[in-house]
Amino acid sequence: MGIFTRKKKSSPDLQGSVKALLFDTFGTTVDWYSGITAHGRRIGTERAIAADWEGLAKEWRSRYKPAVKPVREGKRKWTGFDTLHREQLDKIVGNFGAKQLTDADRDRLTLGWHQLGAWPDAALGVRRLREKFIVGPLSNGTTRQLIDLAKFSGLEWDVVFGADIFRSYKPDKKMYLGAAGVLGLEPSQILMVAAHNDDLKGASKAGLRTCFVRRATEDEEIPGKYDLAVSSFEELATILGAG
Amino acid sequence: MGIFTRKKKSSPDLQGSVKALLFDTFGTTVDWYSGITAHGRRIGTERAIAADWEGLAKEWRSRYKPAVKPVREGKRKWTGFDTLHREQLDKIVGNFGAKQLTDADRDRLTLGWHQLGAWPDAALGVRRLREKFIVGPLSNGTTRQLIDLAKFSGLEWDVVFGADIFRSYKPDKKMYLGAAGVLGLEPSQILMVAAHNDDLKGASKAGLRTCFVRRATEDEEIPGKYDLAVSSFEELATILGAG
Repeated sequence: MGIFTRKKKSSPDLQGSVKALLFDTFGTTVDWYSGITAHGRRIGTERAIAADWEGLAKEWRSRYKPAVKPVREGKRKWTGFDTLHREQLDKIVGNFGAKQLTDADRDRLTLGWHQLGAWPDAALGVRRLREKFIVGPLSNGTTRQLIDLAKFSGLEWDVVFGADIFRSYKPDKKMYLGAAGVLGLEPSQILMVAAHNDDLKGASKAGLRTCFVRRATEDEEIPGKYDLAVSSFEELATILGAG
Repeated sequence: MGIFTRKKKSSPDLQGSVKALLFDTFGTTVDWYSGITAHGRRIGTERAIAADWEGLAKEWRSRYKPAVKPVREGKRKWTGFDTLHREQLDKIVGNFGAKQLTDADRDRLTLGWHQLGAWPDAALGVRRLREKFIVGPLSNGTTRQLIDLAKFSGLEWDVVFGADIFRSYKPDKKMYLGAAGVLGLEPSQILMVAAHNDDLKGASKAGLRTCFVRRATEDEEIPGKYDLAVSSFEELATILGAG
């Protein structure tokens, strides 16, 4: 019960000092795995392609970090998620029985990253948290992608920060400090909410507070490492006394 | 009835091609004049200062364009609305019987620009338009200011574009084209909604579609000049078949 004790202790402090909550998107707020798999199956059914959509979804997602690295490090000029996703898709279709996908099919599947359902607790959790805090995604997706995802899955944000706004990728501190600057807040007044240790490590280095969210498809929690750890956005709302 | 005829003709076209609506904020979406006057009166009552708050509000607002010009033209480094407002306030308090305002009072009055009521049709109009289009403010205010205003007056946006995102000021085309880029849209897929001729002229030059909104405190309409002209956001929603 260490986490729970920790939560109880830290929440009154966070309630007073935190003014904004920034949420990671893929895996933390939306369920990319079920979403991409379903998009794949739908296209596969229409086009009579019996691919391994689960395997493809996992491999596709696993390639995002290496793909953004050169951009984050300035070795490649600014390139957004749609382009990176599309490039990686071309490289892996052959390994999962999806080589017959046409260019148009691949474009459509890539746009599947704009239409992913939120985890069941996400929309209501955000709505409650919004009563008390500024809430927004801070994501490596593009701003347009985040807008589309919000409309698709009923997420109601105050502000939307895609990687294109700051032209880098998390965990580059430019992302966290850029958002803090636009919000007119000290980094310590912001709670970064994510299911990924590298994201929270980057946020913490930039001076933000951190909340780990346990999600089945994402990282293992490192106990005791973060200001908070929760299993849902609704739990977070309750801890922070919101809504 | 030329405007009405024009509206009827152009609306089916706009319905098909327009994907996003961007709204000017001060005067178009929120009523700065009543808001600032009320903030002034409130502080005046508390501090027993019988100033001409109406006159001060008008003069303060009239000074915003000359204040942003050197920033827009690159003659002054990026400076946001809060700082510009505060600077101008210092210059005019003496002319309106408000010289006794302390620094703290002046800061508080400047923050009044973050808490202004929306015009009565605005929140519902935006809610209806949001069902069909991407909606967001594109304003010379800061992003934080727009977030605060949205929370204060119940405006529900998909995305928020303050001048600080693009580090310029309307009618610089960087503002309109920057927003189009982030939205992943052609300029012609965006309808700029404003009560100001210079804003709409800038938007039009950048390739956006334009909608003039008639607001009592703002510009006179130039008949026939814009794609649409309306008297409320709700009228706009009806014309565009939204909600």
